[in-house]
Formats: sequence, structure tokens, C-alpha cells
Amino acid sequence: MRISVIGTGVVGRTLAHGLAGGGHDVVVGTRSPDETAAREEWSDSNLRLAPMEGVADGADLVVNATSGVGTLEALGRVGPSLDGKVLLDISNPLDFSRGFPPTLSVKDTDSLAEQVQRAFPETRVVKSLNMMTASVMLDPIPGTTVFVAGNDAEARRTVADLLRSFGWEHLIEFPSIEAARGLEMWLPLWVRLMGVLGTPEFNLRIVTREAPA
Amino acid sequence: MRISVIGTGVVGRTLAHGLAGGGHDVVVGTRSPDETAAREEWSDSNLRLAPMEGVADGADLVVNATSGVGTLEALGRVGPSLDGKVLLDISNPLDFSRGFPPTLSVKDTDSLAEQVQRAFPETRVVKSLNMMTASVMLDPIPGTTVFVAGNDAEARRTVADLLRSFGWEHLIEFPSIEAARGLEMWLPLWVRLMGVLGTPEFNLRIVTREAPA
Repeated sequence: MRISVIGTGVVGRTLAHGLAGGGHDVVVGTRSPDETAAREEWSDSNLRLAPMEGVADGADLVVNATSGVGTLEALGRVGPSLDGKVLLDISNPLDFSRGFPPTLSVKDTDSLAEQVQRAFPETRVVKSLNMMTASVMLDPIPGTTVFVAGNDAEARRTVADLLRSFGWEHLIEFPSIEAARGLEMWLPLWVRLMGVLGTPEFNLRIVTREAPA
Repeated sequence: MRISVIGTGVVGRTLAHGLAGGGHDVVVGTRSPDETAAREEWSDSNLRLAPMEGVADGADLVVNATSGVGTLEALGRVGPSLDGKVLLDISNPLDFSRGFPPTLSVKDTDSLAEQVQRAFPETRVVKSLNMMTASVMLDPIPGTTVFVAGNDAEARRTVADLLRSFGWEHLIEFPSIEAARGLEMWLPLWVRLMGVLGTPEFNLRIVTREAPA
């Protein structure tokens, strides 16, 4: 697939490398390709960088890997090239302005994914992968669950197929982007679990009671 | 143990019956024992009912099984008999005033459990069991996780021992009641999962990546 990854932080970089390594044609959108290329962490990268404007042109999938506070502004720069595209939103509305643990800048009666869907009504937003650290996104912890939420069934299928190609086997779909509220509100527990577990390399599995034999 | 259960809804009733069946000395606090006893769902119950006032006297453990919107008022009626007690808070701040799914009346920068802890500073509040349906509390889904959060280590141990007596094997402790924020913010995802799974009989398991051999 042709995949445009928006965002050059650790999540965007990890995911872009993983997708490129998996044979996808990847371009990474950034405000200033020259400045990004000059940063130390990009020095040994052979990823293609491009300006935000129009970076979604021709993409089969766009990944929002920006920080939550900068998401709407960043996607605004990408502009009309987002129309009609499947946008995999892996970001979280984390607010670190009060320190750690972060709080949520939107929650409960709204979500960042819904804000994105409202701002880009022609884009098919799918929330997924936001509930885990970047390395787990690409290399699932066996037996654990990944959620896929979005209004458009075909867009959910595109994302689900990609997830299965990473090795995800236990997917749970929500037929509405509104479910992103629950997915994003996982983060306050996630950050505290990282503290007591001493590692970000964990995930959850949903287990339903088996009917008695 | 002598256990006082506050609340006569389905959660309080289920838990009180389960605890009594497990050999504990259970009393259920209610505003009006006579009115509660006259309700159809209590007609075949042999549970002891008592007025809220002083119902925690002599208890080894108090369980808050009230609805979140009524918790502070109900516990206020229980009054000074809560001082020094271990209070297992299984309630959730669910607000159904806008319909289903419910929203949260407190979240993110505070939690119902912290409100209770602030209102009753001499009580040792432990948040647990709020993330699942009542039948799962008493009969764990094998392999799944239960969280225990509270400021007081001995109080957490009291609750953890009780949970193990129910059959819980995978416990994760948080050394601060502040972690209840994360535990309560699970509910928006829980109610949506109940919708897509078609059953409330599920729970999560936290799985950490195993180190490569």
C-alpha cells in the first residue's frame, strides 16, 4: 500500500520504519523535511520525507501519528488531500502541561477522533492502535486484543487487514467513531500500569466467559 | 469477616448474597430496612438489613455498592462508623441523565474514589471490582486481571485477600487511590464492549511481553 504517515515523533518514526520494512510505499509528512532530516534520530533513516501540504495525495492509507495537542493543526496543513482517504488515527489527546501522569484534553462526551472526523467529514477516520506503545503496534503481544472503531465499514476493513498483516489475531470492531471515547480514556490507566509494571510492553486481552459445557 | 454492604441495588444484592454464601457475617445498609424488605427482589432474601446510620460499626470491611451519583450522600448517612474502616469502593460515577451510554460525573483530574477518600479522611478507601459486572466479581473469568488501588497497604491487603478467596489470581496493585481515575475511566469502554460482545460477562487481562529466551 501507499501509506502517508503524519508525524515525526517516536511513534510516527517507529511505525513508518515498520511499514516500510513490511514492503509498503511510505512517505512521512512533516512541516519541514529539511529540518526533520537534520535531526539526529533521522540521520540513519532512508524514509522519504515530504511537506505536510498534499502528503496524502495518492495514499491508500494515511496514519495520524501526531501528538494529540497538535493533531488538528497538522491535519489542517495536509488539507484537501485527506478527502476520501482512510485515516488511521493512533494519536491520543494527552495533555502534559500539568506534568505526569498526563490528563486528557478531550474525553467522555467527545474524543480526539471525533474532532478529526468532524473537521474532515470527507475523510474516513478509523481509531486503532492508540492503546499501546509503538513497538507493540507492529509486533503484537500474542493473544492480546486490538480495537478498531470507525463509521465506515470498508475503512475499518482496510485497517483490520493491515493489522492482521502485523500479526494481530484478536480484533474487536466498533461500528462508530464515537467508541473512540472509550479507547482514548484507556490512556490514564495505561500510563499508571506502565508505572507499576515497569515496562510499556504490555497490552490487554478481552476475555468473555465461556458458556458452561 | 464482618462485612457491611452499603447499597441495595443489583450489585449490592449480588455481592451481599455471595459474601454471605462464602461464610461472612453480612449486613446490608439501606435508608429504610422495612421498605427494602418489602421490595419484590428482596422477598426471598435472608440477608440482614439495617439502617445506614452506624451500619459500619464493628465491620472488618465496608463495601460501597451504591450508585455513583448517590455515593457521597449515602456514605454521609453511615457517618462516623466509617472511621478507621477499610472501605472497598466498587461504585462508578456513571451519569445516565443523557441516556445510554452513560457519561462520567467525575473523571481524569479526579475520581469518585478520591472524592470519597477526601470526604472520609479517616477511612481507608480501596478501589477495586468496579470494572466488571457483579457476577464476575464473585466468580472470576479465569486468567483475567483485577486491580486494587488505595493509599493504605494494609487495607489493600485486606481487599486482596478477600479477592483471592473469590478465586482471583491475577491482581495488580496501585499504591495510590489516585489510580482510581484510570479504573473508573474504563467504564465508557466497558459499556461499549458489552454492546458489541452481547454480554456483560467479560473482563480484561493485562499481558506483559515476555522477554525473549
